[in-house]
Amino acid sequence: MSTLTHLDDTGAAYMVDVSDKTVTTRVARAEAYITMQAETLSMITEGRHKKGDVFATARIAGIMAAKKCPELIPLCHTLLLTSVKVNLTAEPDKSRVRIDTMCKLDAKTGVEMEALTAASVAALTLYDMCKAVDKGMVIESIRLLEKEGGRTGHWKAE
Amino acid sequence: MSTLTHLDDTGAAYMVDVSDKTVTTRVARAEAYITMQAETLSMITEGRHKKGDVFATARIAGIMAAKKCPELIPLCHTLLLTSVKVNLTAEPDKSRVRIDTMCKLDAKTGVEMEALTAASVAALTLYDMCKAVDKGMVIESIRLLEKEGGRTGHWKAE
Amino acid sequence: MSTLTHLDDTGAAYMVDVSDKTVTTRVARAEAYITMQAETLSMITEGRHKKGDVFATARIAGIMAAKKCPELIPLCHTLLLTSVKVNLTAEPDKSRVRIDTMCKLDAKTGVEMEALTAASVAALTLYDMCKAVDKGMVIESIRLLEKEGGRTGHWKAE
Amino acid sequence: MSTLTHLDDTGAAYMVDVSDKTVTTRVARAEAYITMQAETLSMITEGRHKKGDVFATARIAGIMAAKKCPELIPLCHTLLLTSVKVNLTAEPDKSRVRIDTMCKLDAKTGVEMEALTAASVAALTLYDMCKAVDKGMVIESIRLLEKEGGRTGHWKAE
Amino acid sequence: MSTLTHLDDTGAAYMVDVSDKTVTTRVARAEAYITMQAETLSMITEGRHKKGDVFATARIAGIMAAKKCPELIPLCHTLLLTSVKVNLTAEPDKSRVRIDTMCKLDAKTGVEMEALTAASVAALTLYDMCKAVDKGMVIESIRLLEKEGGRTGHWKAE
Amino acid sequence: MSTLTHLDDTGAAYMVDVSDKTVTTRVARAEAYITMQAETLSMITEGRHKKGDVFATARIAGIMAAKKCPELIPLCHTLLLTSVKVNLTAEPDKSRVRIDTMCKLDAKTGVEMEALTAASVAALTLYDMCKAVDKGMVIESIRLLEKEGGRTGHWKAE
Repeated sequence: MSTLTHLDDTGAAYMVDVSDKTVTTRVARAEAYITMQAETLSMITEGRHKKGDVFATARIAGIMAAKKCPELIPLCHTLLLTSVKVNLTAEPDKSRVRIDTMCKLDAKTGVEMEALTAASVAALTLYDMCKAVDKGMVIESIRLLEKEGGRTGHWKAE
Repeated sequence: MSTLTHLDDTGAAYMVDVSDKTVTTRVARAEAYITMQAETLSMITEGRHKKGDVFATARIAGIMAAKKCPELIPLCHTLLLTSVKVNLTAEPDKSRVRIDTMCKLDAKTGVEMEALTAASVAALTLYDMCKAVDKGMVIESIRLLEKEGGRTGHWKAE
Repeated sequence: MSTLTHLDDTGAAYMVDVSDKTVTTRVARAEAYITMQAETLSMITEGRHKKGDVFATARIAGIMAAKKCPELIPLCHTLLLTSVKVNLTAEPDKSRVRIDTMCKLDAKTGVEMEALTAASVAALTLYDMCKAVDKGMVIESIRLLEKEGGRTGHWKAE
Repeated sequence: MSTLTHLDDTGAAYMVDVSDKTVTTRVARAEAYITMQAETLSMITEGRHKKGDVFATARIAGIMAAKKCPELIPLCHTLLLTSVKVNLTAEPDKSRVRIDTMCKLDAKTGVEMEALTAASVAALTLYDMCKAVDKGMVIESIRLLEKEGGRTGHWKAE
Repeated sequence: MSTLTHLDDTGAAYMVDVSDKTVTTRVARAEAYITMQAETLSMITEGRHKKGDVFATARIAGIMAAKKCPELIPLCHTLLLTSVKVNLTAEPDKSRVRIDTMCKLDAKTGVEMEALTAASVAALTLYDMCKAVDKGMVIESIRLLEKEGGRTGHWKAE
Repeated sequence: MSTLTHLDDTGAAYMVDVSDKTVTTRVARAEAYITMQAETLSMITEGRHKKGDVFATARIAGIMAAKKCPELIPLCHTLLLTSVKVNLTAEPDKSRVRIDTMCKLDAKTGVEMEALTAASVAALTLYDMCKAVDKGMVIESIRLLEKEGGRTGHWKAE
């Protein structure tokens, strides 16, 4: 651990030069949780709105956010994602929804930010759709689970 | 608590009709935390990169993300924010950075999503700038702190 | 019928000055159809993918496109939509899907383009999701059905 | 014809994995028509606005929309187009304008959606510029004419 | 002249709070020049490409850029422009093109940045279209000419 | 010098076909100046706001604008930048700030527009942050300094 890669010697931010890196297949997996009241979770997963668009909307928002990542994160490189998946799973025993994402491409730089951004925006979209009934929802533990490819190879969260 | 406002009777998503709501001043405050290794936090706040652009970049990213909220969250209304603030505070004793945001406008609908999105994207930007030295950082507790204005009036997190 | 409003005396395009127009409630309704093979329509509406995200994805895409209209149509004014609806209806007897949209706001200028753009992009999204099985789908009859508000008042397609 | 490629086993939408596809040169051609009153068409092509920006504006809008396709169509991959053409032809005998488009690139996935999106947005732009004089215009027959490249090779509309 | 309005007491950037400002009609006019070789200017204005899309493309790019201003300039407020004009004038005696722009709206904050951004992007678009024949073109004197409305009232460049 | 590359035989604009060009490493360097009152420059570089975000904000805005170039310049190809740098230097003796930029990638087409756009938007951002105290600032001499790579090879401004 030595220096921050996104700052030059004077501390000024710049987009890191990846010209000399090798194109390899890169995969990243991330997750996020959104905790809510039990009744809120029931409204999404059972009864009246069971077949409703809540999860579908969050899924689409997450996928589109992965593509928008270089517009959101100032020093991210524009990438050509070859695959994006956003899964949502209700965990009624913990009164929360788990979001897990996967992004993949062949490139000189990794897709960690895309996977994390997809998870974050899917969670925010769930918040948006349920906020009229439950403003106290909390988005928790957005983190990288695993990444493959590139010079530093495989990394997995403990 | 009754039904989800963003779904119609068939469960289809739509952008809620706010035509008949009143224009009032709306304020929302949100927060997020990003936990990292002690050394990572030191790199941002002390020594070599002390005057560097890390916090400034995250701040700008958060402000710009608040403006981009209706592009990210599918059912959000486009809004004309009159003020956005994003503060970052190092908390060395907890080895984390706290992000708190404030969004404000006069409108028929609230700015909760803008404040939450600003906090999320500022946190993601910190992750991006430090990920080369610390992939295990975790973004935690993104939540609404307080909102004012609108029909439901003042709300404050417990 | 006299002159095109979006061109000046020299024929140069410009964004029409609406400063002196009155803010009124404006509503526009539009529709589009996408014709496909009977088997393709069955795949969307029956059997294996019956509960799948096809219509939800098109609906979300249409709503988001309404918000993006001023980025797509060069001379459109930026607007603050107060409501957007996108409905999709399978018409198996005609082997097609009907898309109808509604956009609403209080503004100095109308929302016809938003309603038409939402219908077009919802139709294009259906094409995208089914193109692997049916490249010959045709999007037909994108048109304005009705508009209310503004100086010219109510207009309805014949 | 078997299953929709953009849905997984549970019916959830995702961005199709194209990692293992081959990079080939891909070309797609699409068309659209916009039918209008004879006087409207005359205003564009003759007399006072003959040298005006109407067709130029629609052409530029179409080209820019091709580049925006992955932002509009939720499950589209981001692509690096190497060529985009948008042609507009007045057909006075049929009181309409024909729009035909061509998109090209070297990639793992096709450019059908880009060509169709360019045609649609060029047509919508014509509608926008003429709507003050003719709200009854109809956009018709947006369809793929031809595509080359990729695993499925050459395809041509009947 | 005292302090920079876009920084707080600690020097951190934020979006200035305009909540308490009055809505007035605001107008801003800006200009830019692009100097080129005489032959390059001739290619645009005479002979073979006389009726070509060069000026129309720059005009459209400038208008669209005015709408994109809050996405480009980090601390700009999102605005609802009511009018945008971009004029291009060949000045053969000075071997340059003059671009002048006008933006207008009713708002709590001014449109100077929109007018300046429109002028800049129109100039950049001319550069793009002519760069294959003349890389040495220079964009000069982008400046505000005049602004009206708001607390500080009328301002005119010397 | 013969014809404009972005127009076809009829003078219609299109996105130039680069399919047959070779992928080479491309670099472009550009610059811009913004002249202001001596007091304005002092406010940025000395005293109260010395550690403030002014330069950082302009730097980030410039980097993000380079990525947005294909959205702004109608006929630009979408590119995957591998490196972007934006430097700001106060020149107190000339009462101005110099902005110089560098963009780099491996592609079939050059990055001149990205470097010029980054310089322009960084300058506009400085204008925005200082306009409350100095509306008379002028952005001057936006020009390409140098480009490498591609068929035409190395080019350097005189």
